[in-house]
Amino acid sequence: MPKIRATVAYDGTEFHGFARQPGLRTVQGTLEQTLEQLMGKPVEVFGSGRTDAGVHARAQVVHWTQDVGPSPDRYPYVFRRILPPDIVVQKAEVVDEAFHARFSAIRKTYRYTVQRADVEDVFTNRYAWHMPRALRLAEMRAAAGSLVGEHDFTSFCAAATPVENKVRTVYAIEFEERGTYLDIYCTGSGFLQNMVRIIVGTLIDVGLGKLDPSAMPKILAGRDRRLAGQTAPAKGLCLWQVDYGDDAVRFDSNARAKS
Amino acid sequence: MPKIRATVAYDGTEFHGFARQPGLRTVQGTLEQTLEQLMGKPVEVFGSGRTDAGVHARAQVVHWTQDVGPSPDRYPYVFRRILPPDIVVQKAEVVDEAFHARFSAIRKTYRYTVQRADVEDVFTNRYAWHMPRALRLAEMRAAAGSLVGEHDFTSFCAAATPVENKVRTVYAIEFEERGTYLDIYCTGSGFLQNMVRIIVGTLIDVGLGKLDPSAMPKILAGRDRRLAGQTAPAKGLCLWQVDYGDDAVRFDSNARAKS
Repeated sequence: MPKIRATVAYDGTEFHGFARQPGLRTVQGTLEQTLEQLMGKPVEVFGSGRTDAGVHARAQVVHWTQDVGPSPDRYPYVFRRILPPDIVVQKAEVVDEAFHARFSAIRKTYRYTVQRADVEDVFTNRYAWHMPRALRLAEMRAAAGSLVGEHDFTSFCAAATPVENKVRTVYAIEFEERGTYLDIYCTGSGFLQNMVRIIVGTLIDVGLGKLDPSAMPKILAGRDRRLAGQTAPAKGLCLWQVDYGDDAVRFDSNARAKS
Repeated sequence: MPKIRATVAYDGTEFHGFARQPGLRTVQGTLEQTLEQLMGKPVEVFGSGRTDAGVHARAQVVHWTQDVGPSPDRYPYVFRRILPPDIVVQKAEVVDEAFHARFSAIRKTYRYTVQRADVEDVFTNRYAWHMPRALRLAEMRAAAGSLVGEHDFTSFCAAATPVENKVRTVYAIEFEERGTYLDIYCTGSGFLQNMVRIIVGTLIDVGLGKLDPSAMPKILAGRDRRLAGQTAPAKGLCLWQVDYGDDAVRFDSNARAKS
C-alpha cells in the first residue's frame, strides 16, 4: 500500500494538542476522521511528534498508508474543502515504505514568538507571548549559548517526563527581531516534553534580570526542573520545520523570511 | 466633564460588529460595559463609524465623557486587565469639548487583505480573503483609478443603504504586495455601507477577468448596485486609520511598514 507523507499547518488555539484523545478535538483525530470520511475506512495518522494544547505548527509532518484515496497531489485541494479553517494540508506525496514521520526525523526547529510592546497586538495574541517589560537581549543570547550542544536536559523538561534518557542535542538557538516581535528559533535532534517552552521561559527570566546567564551550566548540571525558569505559554510556540535529511525539507533559513 | 478620545484595535471575528445591539457581543457594547464597571455608572461610547460583523480595526477612534475614572494615560493598562483578548485600547487622552469621534473625522483609510496562494495560511485566515486564482493586477489598478475622485457611489453600496446623499470622495486606492498578500488601501472622506467591500469585490472581479476596467465609469453612472461586482467577505477588511486633521493621527504612510 502506498505510504503518503503530508505537511500540515494548524492554528493550535482550539485543538487539545496533536495527539488523539477520546472526545476531544485534536489534530491527529481531525485528520483521521477526515481520511476515514474520504476512504470509507479507518486510517491511522502518524506525526513527527506531539504538540501541546495551544501550540501551533507551520510544518508538522505526518504519514499514513492507503490503498484507495485521492492522488497525493490532489490532497491540498481535497482537504481544503473538508477540513476546518484552522488546519490545512500544504503538500502531500508518495514516499518510500521505509519513511516514518517520527522515526525518520533527524532534526526539528521550533519558533517561539514574544511580542515586546506596552499593549498587546490583538491580531497576534493567539501566536505570541506579550511581554510589556524590557528584555536584556545580550544576556539572553549568552544564556542560550550555554544550552547549545549535547546536554542532559532534565532541568529543562516537565518533571513528569516519562522517558529515561534526557540527553538531547540543541544545534542552535537563534534570535530574530521583527518589529516589536522577537522570534527565538530552537533547532535540535529532538525535544523533551515542554523543553522549548522551559528554555524560552528561562531565557525570558534571564532577559528580565531574574536569572544570570552564568547560572546556565549549573542549572543543566543540577538535573532538576526546579532550577530552571518559568514555562513559557503554549500560544507563542510553533513547530516550524521537521528535517529528514532529504532535499524536500532540508534546513532552509531563507524560508523564515518568506513566512 | 472631561472628554476622552481613545484609539481601539479589535479582532472583529467574534464581534457582531461595532454598534451596540441588545443581547449581542459588540465592540461598543463591550467598551460601554467595561467603562460602566470602572466608573460605577453608565457611559456612552461614540465611534468614528460602525464596522460590520467580522470586520477588524487597527485604529478605530472613540470618545466618551467622564467625571470620575482613571487618568487617560492609564487607560491602556487598566483596560488590558479587564477587556477580553480580542480588543485593546492603545491610547487614550483628554481632548477638547468640541471633538467628536464621528463628526470631527475628515478622512478614513481601510485596508483590505487578499491572500493569493494555492493553500490558505491558517494563521491569517481570520484576516484575509483567500484567492487561489491568478489576479490581473494591472487591470485592477486601472479599474481602481476610475473610482478615485468625487462620485455618486450608489452602485458601490448596499442596496438598502438609508442615506440620501451617496456622493463620496475617494482620495486614493493603493495596492501593496507583501509576500503572498495583497493589501488594498482605500482612503476617502467617508464610506457608505459595504462600500469598501463592494469596491474590493469589484476589483477582484476585474482581476479575475470577469469585468473589464473600462466598465467602471458606466457602473458608477448607472447608480445601481447590481452593476458592480461581488461584495468581498468581511474578514479581509480592517479599519486602518481615522484622520482628524491634527498631528496625532495625520495620514502616515510609514505606519504601514511598521505594522
